[in-house]
Amino acid sequence: MSEFDLIQQIRSASLPSQPGTVLGIGDDAAVLRPPPGYDLVSCVDTLVAGVHYPGNTAAADIGYKSLAVNLSDLAAMGAQPLWATLALTLDSHDPAWIRDFLTGFAAAAQPFDVDLVGGDTTQGPQVITVQAMGAVPPGEALCRTGAQAGDRVVVTGTIGDAALALHQLQCGEPVDEYLLGRLNRPSARVSAGLQVRNLVTSAIDISDGFVQDLKHVLKASNVGAKVQMDAMPASEPMIRAAAINQQHLQLTGGDDYELCLTVPQNHIDEVLTRLDAVGCGGQVVGEILAQPGICIESSTGELTELGSLAGYEHF
Amino acid sequence: MSEFDLIQQIRSASLPSQPGTVLGIGDDAAVLRPPPGYDLVSCVDTLVAGVHYPGNTAAADIGYKSLAVNLSDLAAMGAQPLWATLALTLDSHDPAWIRDFLTGFAAAAQPFDVDLVGGDTTQGPQVITVQAMGAVPPGEALCRTGAQAGDRVVVTGTIGDAALALHQLQCGEPVDEYLLGRLNRPSARVSAGLQVRNLVTSAIDISDGFVQDLKHVLKASNVGAKVQMDAMPASEPMIRAAAINQQHLQLTGGDDYELCLTVPQNHIDEVLTRLDAVGCGGQVVGEILAQPGICIESSTGELTELGSLAGYEHF
Repeated sequence: MSEFDLIQQIRSASLPSQPGTVLGIGDDAAVLRPPPGYDLVSCVDTLVAGVHYPGNTAAADIGYKSLAVNLSDLAAMGAQPLWATLALTLDSHDPAWIRDFLTGFAAAAQPFDVDLVGGDTTQGPQVITVQAMGAVPPGEALCRTGAQAGDRVVVTGTIGDAALALHQLQCGEPVDEYLLGRLNRPSARVSAGLQVRNLVTSAIDISDGFVQDLKHVLKASNVGAKVQMDAMPASEPMIRAAAINQQHLQLTGGDDYELCLTVPQNHIDEVLTRLDAVGCGGQVVGEILAQPGICIESSTGELTELGSLAGYEHF
Repeated sequence: MSEFDLIQQIRSASLPSQPGTVLGIGDDAAVLRPPPGYDLVSCVDTLVAGVHYPGNTAAADIGYKSLAVNLSDLAAMGAQPLWATLALTLDSHDPAWIRDFLTGFAAAAQPFDVDLVGGDTTQGPQVITVQAMGAVPPGEALCRTGAQAGDRVVVTGTIGDAALALHQLQCGEPVDEYLLGRLNRPSARVSAGLQVRNLVTSAIDISDGFVQDLKHVLKASNVGAKVQMDAMPASEPMIRAAAINQQHLQLTGGDDYELCLTVPQNHIDEVLTRLDAVGCGGQVVGEILAQPGICIESSTGELTELGSLAGYEHF
């Protein structure tokens, strides 16, 4: 299978289209017409075989995730997804693998009509880079810099599921199907990002782990936070697993692709109502403090500095 | 060196900026304001160590080339470069290597003030994907589909230099410095693309080899071409090398990153004047024919079908 056959296979795959695509796959570059008066939002994420997913992950799951992690970044900016490009480095061009990869990619693209407008295919070790573009009204992009003391920290969905699935896989334990879906087919919270765009002071997607990503916001906004561990939303399978390391998984586990938002107190009710309406729900899990650093608050109100928590040594 | 140190090193590198960059490196995504009324042009190209450059290529040359090959795609669309993103997969994070890589990247970015607005850094085998964005007035992008019978085929610069350098490297021969520069630091013909935008019927950049890339234009435009081999511009070092395989190198050698244009006869003088003015020059090397296929025309006017040329078996 030549590079040109591969490009032909990608061109003929069943993928959504966008009215703003003037020229898609097949020339030196794509020509795109962003909606007039909007800013363009652009992000890029790479998945490396054996690093970002186990080597035996299904091609369709890799295809899905390669786009979904980028749509998650657009969601965290409050942007409407429009286009993507795909740089596919593969050791061999197996038509069946490509077909399955594209089926997964299309499944992630379809809910938001993301149009695959270009890419590059090269031979080498399996490395997949997707770049996504979206649109946001000027001044309305959600940045990491806006968190204010007194804001509530809100997360969407449930936290730690992907990390628990990965833990089960790595230990050779039976893997819960729901958790495996959370690891392999994360839901980019695009609708959530669009719905809360004018109500929150900052947003980030939880890709590296809740604490790590919250720290990015705190550093960029020059504030601190206290986190109520008891409030951290856990899925039914997480609770059933009764993992002794649940707190560790929820604080440090990556790959959730939920949103972490900071919300002024007077907008909390509206934000939670809107997050319920789009299906993912939201949960207040902490509060922004003027003092830098992260404290964990127990159910009795006792504050513990994060660094002294058991199981948190590696940060 | 952690991923965050690496990102910090990239953020603090001396790179150009663009007034349309609302938010650059450091959030979930970049926020960009394309010039009002323009279309966006987006392309992506991947370089794999050992595939697209010899493993011992200097980091600065890799950095330069990773951006230049993308700017060449923008040039072939007649677009003004604006922004780039960088997905860097490296087996180790060596600060000196990164510094040199960024120095080369900056050297390619500076002539056009290309702003590096985002990226991703991951651990794995060395694979570098750059995506570039530019702007073009609506309807003025140069596509592969517009070539018309009677148009002249024009190439910029000289052809085959990069392939000769690679040949010398691979044979262990002494490598001409000028040719090595042509291989490692290709000049994206951005000014040429902008200058001829309204005068040519199609454009493509010569990355896979003159014939291969011309074929893309012929297929997209449903036409054929005859090529005057004697007219193919050769550099002084190419002529000095008096390579017995000069014709083969010029027809099939990749990595030139010159432009191949099709030009209506009444625009030829103006196009050649403008290509001289921007410094790369241009040369008429053939003519578009209604009949599909490629013929090589000898100095006596004899036509030979490409497929029957010695040294051309592998196509």
